Amino acid sequence: MRKVAVIGVGHTVFSRASEKTSLELFTEAAMEAISESNLKPKDIQSLHMGNVYGDFEEGQTMIQAFAADSIGAFNIPVMRYENVCCSASVAARDAFMWVASGFYDIVLVGGVEKAGSMGTELATRTFAMGSDSRYEYPCGITFPAFFGLLTHLYSTKYGIPLAKLKEQMAITSVQSHHYGMFNPRAHFHKEITVEMALNSFTVCSPLQLYDCCPLSDGAAAVILTSEEVAKKLTSKPVYITGVGLASQGLLANQEEILPRIKAREISAKQAYDMAGVTPEDIDICELHDCFSIASLIDAEGLGFFEFGTSGEAWEKGEAAIGGKVAINPSGGLKAKGHPIGATGTAQVYEVVKQLRGEVEPERRVEGAKIGMTDTAGGDAGSVCNLILQRGW
Amino acid sequence: MRKVAVIGVGHTVFSRASEKTSLELFTEAAMEAISESNLKPKDIQSLHMGNVYGDFEEGQTMIQAFAADSIGAFNIPVMRYENVCCSASVAARDAFMWVASGFYDIVLVGGVEKAGSMGTELATRTFAMGSDSRYEYPCGITFPAFFGLLTHLYSTKYGIPLAKLKEQMAITSVQSHHYGMFNPRAHFHKEITVEMALNSFTVCSPLQLYDCCPLSDGAAAVILTSEEVAKKLTSKPVYITGVGLASQGLLANQEEILPRIKAREISAKQAYDMAGVTPEDIDICELHDCFSIASLIDAEGLGFFEFGTSGEAWEKGEAAIGGKVAINPSGGLKAKGHPIGATGTAQVYEVVKQLRGEVEPERRVEGAKIGMTDTAGGDAGSVCNLILQRGW
Repeated sequence: MRKVAVIGVGHTVFSRASEKTSLELFTEAAMEAISESNLKPKDIQSLHMGNVYGDFEEGQTMIQAFAADSIGAFNIPVMRYENVCCSASVAARDAFMWVASGFYDIVLVGGVEKAGSMGTELATRTFAMGSDSRYEYPCGITFPAFFGLLTHLYSTKYGIPLAKLKEQMAITSVQSHHYGMFNPRAHFHKEITVEMALNSFTVCSPLQLYDCCPLSDGAAAVILTSEEVAKKLTSKPVYITGVGLASQGLLANQEEILPRIKAREISAKQAYDMAGVTPEDIDICELHDCFSIASLIDAEGLGFFEFGTSGEAWEKGEAAIGGKVAINPSGGLKAKGHPIGATGTAQVYEVVKQLRGEVEPERRVEGAKIGMTDTAGGDAGSVCNLILQRGW
Repeated sequence: MRKVAVIGVGHTVFSRASEKTSLELFTEAAMEAISESNLKPKDIQSLHMGNVYGDFEEGQTMIQAFAADSIGAFNIPVMRYENVCCSASVAARDAFMWVASGFYDIVLVGGVEKAGSMGTELATRTFAMGSDSRYEYPCGITFPAFFGLLTHLYSTKYGIPLAKLKEQMAITSVQSHHYGMFNPRAHFHKEITVEMALNSFTVCSPLQLYDCCPLSDGAAAVILTSEEVAKKLTSKPVYITGVGLASQGLLANQEEILPRIKAREISAKQAYDMAGVTPEDIDICELHDCFSIASLIDAEGLGFFEFGTSGEAWEKGEAAIGGKVAINPSGGLKAKGHPIGATGTAQVYEVVKQLRGEVEPERRVEGAKIGMTDTAGGDAGSVCNLILQRGW
């Protein structure tokens, strides 16, 4: 298997309701990635694209064919992946294999979603189709409901009083909103406080407004190449050194392990083992903080903190820049935003920019050498992880 | 790159409206493929699944996670692919790479769709989202409309009077319905005649009822393994020796080439070149006859007959068993049925069974050594081809 590099990245502004179509957003991100790679559209050999609800959002399936056409990469192989919120990560993992295997040298991976345009109420109902359609969402298991239940489980299992836990959860949101302030492509540019979070309205008990990420419009794209091509085109290649993907089924079958997410623990182990690194080696991680409780659960599942101690870690700044591992210096899903089909490649964008040192000083992880992405789809029906390392 | 074998195949009965859910249909096909491979669910290392409109049909995205759980392949990597009607072929091509690269030894690929349950009118409108959502289907370009237009173009371009062309098109349907009679898993078991076809009601001028394939419920699945594993488990491995995938954009940009489909010609060339074979070498081909005119266009695009001569070929029996190439001895989409997200793997199922000599004598292609599949998504936004060869 050959080494695979990320040599260019692109990312639109994430926002509530963009005036641009999905194709326009994707094309914008893709052209930025292509241009940053010193390539032309005709150099692209294959397009791998994450998109979840284009059919509901714009009445469009097969967007990948029109996307290739739109960027001027005519007649290339195109594929669309749907693993709900980890669709673009899955696309990246898959594209990685097409390059690692030696079949292609230069591929484009990206994702797009008009999740913000759908509006919160409709999106919440529509997106719930990512949980089980027989036994889960018909019983009320939307995603806010699922993460609300996890909050209660977490509180009980680790003996942390709910009031205390909610304070810790609020701290994760405060940190994300702070970093988002300095990310020009983030959905929100607004500082919040723990008090504001704890006084905000209830979305789905015990989750309040600032426990929930927004639904966003946006796109992100990255160019993957072989090592040989990367060395010709950039002095700062970032290598994908580990990939992981795992699944789990009905929540009812996860009774013994929840609030831990088995799919994440398996996926992360795959990625660590492949890269030959441990959680201690990760300098920066963009993880799937769709809800504040997810930040705590994710960080533990990835091995950064002991189970039940993530809240304390955030309190002590161990999850902040300068701490044990810099978590979500982009602002995360909470502040940067969550265009679900694009989130995986948006995470890759951030990690690559951080490893290159190309982000605003206020949110830069100085000297970062190894980064990780973590993306969860549905009620953790699948989790995908990537490990990226500086190549210079 | 390692050799990749198909060692087991599964296929539900295709029908109008199944009482089974998508998960039940997929599980049935998958368990048949697993069992035929002398494997157990826990041997499966990865699941690659085609499904197009599960969200509209059953309110379900991420079906792949619940499918893995349902067959007892717990926590494995799962991926869903959507390239409209060639989704399962794309899944198979992708799974091929995960085995060819050496990453996995045993993977499950399949597809499922409840297209029949949706009903023709609703499905026609819903499936039109596979064409361009800006300029095509809002102007009336549903799939029957697109293939109706192609019929006119074909008639004009090749100077075949429409009445004559329609007779030739009817012959393709008569042949498919004849073979479907002997396929116990086919949607239709009904002989038709040219007269019946030409007297049937108009669906979308000039297409009549028997020019159109049905929309079906059903699933199909296949097991891919490395050569080493295949040799241990079966005496009749079928190798995937060539794969192709290409795209094209807006119909308006295809003006100079239509009714020829550029994506098909590029994809087929990729597959032929990789396998080191030519159209003359293909003994059996399952091609994408969603409409009778598509049979003619596909067969020419794949290189079996000169452009504009497919109709004559069908008339002379050159596309029948015993002719130049046996086309759609399963009954094709026309008679076997078309559960869109499953069709690609259903085609692989048929080719594998034919190469093994395991089909009913009335529709058996005796001595077939090399087979091909051809699947088109949307208004040919992407086309995927696979070439399969006997390994014994």
